[in-house]
Amino acid sequence: MTSDELAYATIREIGARFRRRELSPVELTRTLLARIERLDPGLHAYVTVTAERALADARAAEAALGRGADTSPLLGIPIAYKDIYATRGIRTTAGGALLADWIPEDDATCVTRLTEAGCVMLGKLITHEFAFGIQVPGHRFAPARNPWNLDHMPGGSSSGSGAARAAGLAFGALGSDTGGSIRGPAAFCAIAGLKPTYGRTSRAGVVTLSWTLDHTGPMARTVEDCAVLLHALAGHDPADPASSPAPVGDYLTPLRQGIRGLRVGVPRAYFFEGADAEVEKAFEQALATLRGLGATVTDVEIPSIETSWAFLAILMAEAFAYHEHDLRAHPELYGDVLRERLLAGGLITGPEYVQAQRLRARLRAEMADVLTRVDVLATPTTPKPAPTFAAVWDPNFGFPKSNMAPFNMTGLPALAVPCGFSSQGLPLSLQLAGRPFDEATVLRVGHAYEQATEWHTRRPRI
Amino acid sequence: MTSDELAYATIREIGARFRRRELSPVELTRTLLARIERLDPGLHAYVTVTAERALADARAAEAALGRGADTSPLLGIPIAYKDIYATRGIRTTAGGALLADWIPEDDATCVTRLTEAGCVMLGKLITHEFAFGIQVPGHRFAPARNPWNLDHMPGGSSSGSGAARAAGLAFGALGSDTGGSIRGPAAFCAIAGLKPTYGRTSRAGVVTLSWTLDHTGPMARTVEDCAVLLHALAGHDPADPASSPAPVGDYLTPLRQGIRGLRVGVPRAYFFEGADAEVEKAFEQALATLRGLGATVTDVEIPSIETSWAFLAILMAEAFAYHEHDLRAHPELYGDVLRERLLAGGLITGPEYVQAQRLRARLRAEMADVLTRVDVLATPTTPKPAPTFAAVWDPNFGFPKSNMAPFNMTGLPALAVPCGFSSQGLPLSLQLAGRPFDEATVLRVGHAYEQATEWHTRRPRI
Repeated sequence: MTSDELAYATIREIGARFRRRELSPVELTRTLLARIERLDPGLHAYVTVTAERALADARAAEAALGRGADTSPLLGIPIAYKDIYATRGIRTTAGGALLADWIPEDDATCVTRLTEAGCVMLGKLITHEFAFGIQVPGHRFAPARNPWNLDHMPGGSSSGSGAARAAGLAFGALGSDTGGSIRGPAAFCAIAGLKPTYGRTSRAGVVTLSWTLDHTGPMARTVEDCAVLLHALAGHDPADPASSPAPVGDYLTPLRQGIRGLRVGVPRAYFFEGADAEVEKAFEQALATLRGLGATVTDVEIPSIETSWAFLAILMAEAFAYHEHDLRAHPELYGDVLRERLLAGGLITGPEYVQAQRLRARLRAEMADVLTRVDVLATPTTPKPAPTFAAVWDPNFGFPKSNMAPFNMTGLPALAVPCGFSSQGLPLSLQLAGRPFDEATVLRVGHAYEQATEWHTRRPRI
Repeated sequence: MTSDELAYATIREIGARFRRRELSPVELTRTLLARIERLDPGLHAYVTVTAERALADARAAEAALGRGADTSPLLGIPIAYKDIYATRGIRTTAGGALLADWIPEDDATCVTRLTEAGCVMLGKLITHEFAFGIQVPGHRFAPARNPWNLDHMPGGSSSGSGAARAAGLAFGALGSDTGGSIRGPAAFCAIAGLKPTYGRTSRAGVVTLSWTLDHTGPMARTVEDCAVLLHALAGHDPADPASSPAPVGDYLTPLRQGIRGLRVGVPRAYFFEGADAEVEKAFEQALATLRGLGATVTDVEIPSIETSWAFLAILMAEAFAYHEHDLRAHPELYGDVLRERLLAGGLITGPEYVQAQRLRARLRAEMADVLTRVDVLATPTTPKPAPTFAAVWDPNFGFPKSNMAPFNMTGLPALAVPCGFSSQGLPLSLQLAGRPFDEATVLRVGHAYEQATEWHTRRPRI
């Protein structure tokens, strides 16, 4: 296997090679570190590479494999973390000057869980500033580039996570998703990204953007890799007050069951506004594929879907509440874009926030009702492919309407999976959402679609 | 039995007389209606007396008793409703000019449940304007008076509910409680009042003050009467999004078990600030009584109890959100006090509201922790007895700090039960709070205390 072939293998393939002694965790880790050294200067996916830690983890995994203590499918798998996950003894910047020198004393729960599952920590991945700003030129941290076209954004805020996995610089990455920050970069980078149900994966030790909208979750090359990572991450964490005690399901067995008879609902309103014709075409082809796999596809109505705009009021009020103290004490340590967005959040009134939460409750009830009649919802993940940096750096660039935020509002599990490429060669993506804590069905549909289409096997030229 | 003796009997005593054919529902209802006609002009507990409806209900109950269809302990029991409970075909004013002519098309769920349990509807009881204003002189609706001293408030906002039951003008009343509006009037009028756990009793059809703080619940002469009413009210209601599916317990059997070995916790901080010496003395005597009944009494700490002030930010932002449209369209239909309070709520910022909800979550966690070590918490219901109207009509009268609001913040069940009288002859009250959905234990402690002290047997001179 060449370095490229190795870098684009799946977690399952790597695990099989480990166990056949065709590859060792230390060898793989060295290959990845060399690849990062070669490619990352042009991509900026990493803000911190933890080479020593990675090699130590890899040696430990190698010893465990040698002992036959290889019960975890993640043993020896090199992973990296969005730089808002606290890592003990390792700088955690959250992409902002404010925390540029912060060395946490504890790992985030998700980091602990992947470490306990045997993962090798390669390093920390660039994030939009506090998962909310945009790195305009002159920002303390250069933005990550999209491996499919360096002039385009890789999406955000888990920008480094999307770019790293797409460029073969990690086998999986953890992102966080407040309004689409896992699914957007997954969509723009042609990888799979899962926002689990609200409460399914811990947020303890992850820098907050919005208490009621933040989710953590995995990004990986394939849906199955996401399922493997979710299995290690999921479960109750008393350190996160929003963590759910709901039992953790089996995410892997259902992947082999196919989707014959499953009911896919397509909400036609809202999600197609301003969509590119290429996006619509790819989406309709994806529906045809799902039908071909035996699923039934029907249109569904979510009457108040347009009220998803209330998302922004909730996000901005909560983000300002979180940052208010630091913003007043150290305004100069905030990037211009982030500072302006946060200050705008301070102007949301309490009653406006309350009304937004009420609209949210209605939206949640409506989606619950629709999901009694269909098993999953399908939409384009984004109405357009990745924009250029030139576009998003324009001062008039607004907050784009998000096809993903409705599932932050409702807390439902939602997956992004590649569904083609634009005529410009930019990735397109299918979003699948399901019932609370029914990640298994969402992953099952995504896996069946992915395996039938194999869009995920394409690689960027970098 | 004289009219007075009848009017102060308990629901159980009345039921026993019905079944011994010593009394009929029609006879009782006529007695109550005559008593209302005689006494209410001086008390103003009722805003609407539904005499025809009451007699029709009573005749139906009488027929059911005659048939032996007497399974409900509430069959034929005359009850009245705070005038924010919607009643089909019966004016429901919410104490405000805005709704002075509103004739609802449906009953509130709680009204339906008590009607189905056989209750006789005597009428609608005065409430502070939209459960939040104060009726200053000149207000559209005259305030209810305190039967123990007409110059004093009966408490609010369920003012008519407290006054009616204390004056023997109904055998039970439903109130609503956002920051103490059931327990306050119960305390000031020497009756029992229960705010159940958030989600235990339905709010569907009850005019909203604050979505996350509002509770409905019973007010009655005795704790046992509250338990009988709660049994009929409790249970899931799909029409109230906050309604809980938690199973309904047995509230009556535990009343006979005594309280030997039960652990009573006393939070010494916050609840005694500004308390009258007489209140403190009555409270300490109540603790001695509980010890005498076999309970253990220990001091407990709720570290962030002082953050209960956050209650006001939540209440005011939510109240403004509910009223904003009508307030802008018809400011003249709001009383001065209510309008000013609501407008102030419009100035709460979203981030302030968010922080208040965060403080609330911490308080909830702390109380849950304390309630792993004790079975109930005991505090004075109010730090002082009922104020005079002259005092509350003073423009400088502020929002009193509430000993009850912490249990609206945390949603825990809380009961007010009489615990003595001031030297001026005004009622004093003990507040007991417990674990979520453990109304049974709260009622059990309240009942044991009440039966040992018999403060509830005193009657006002009216």
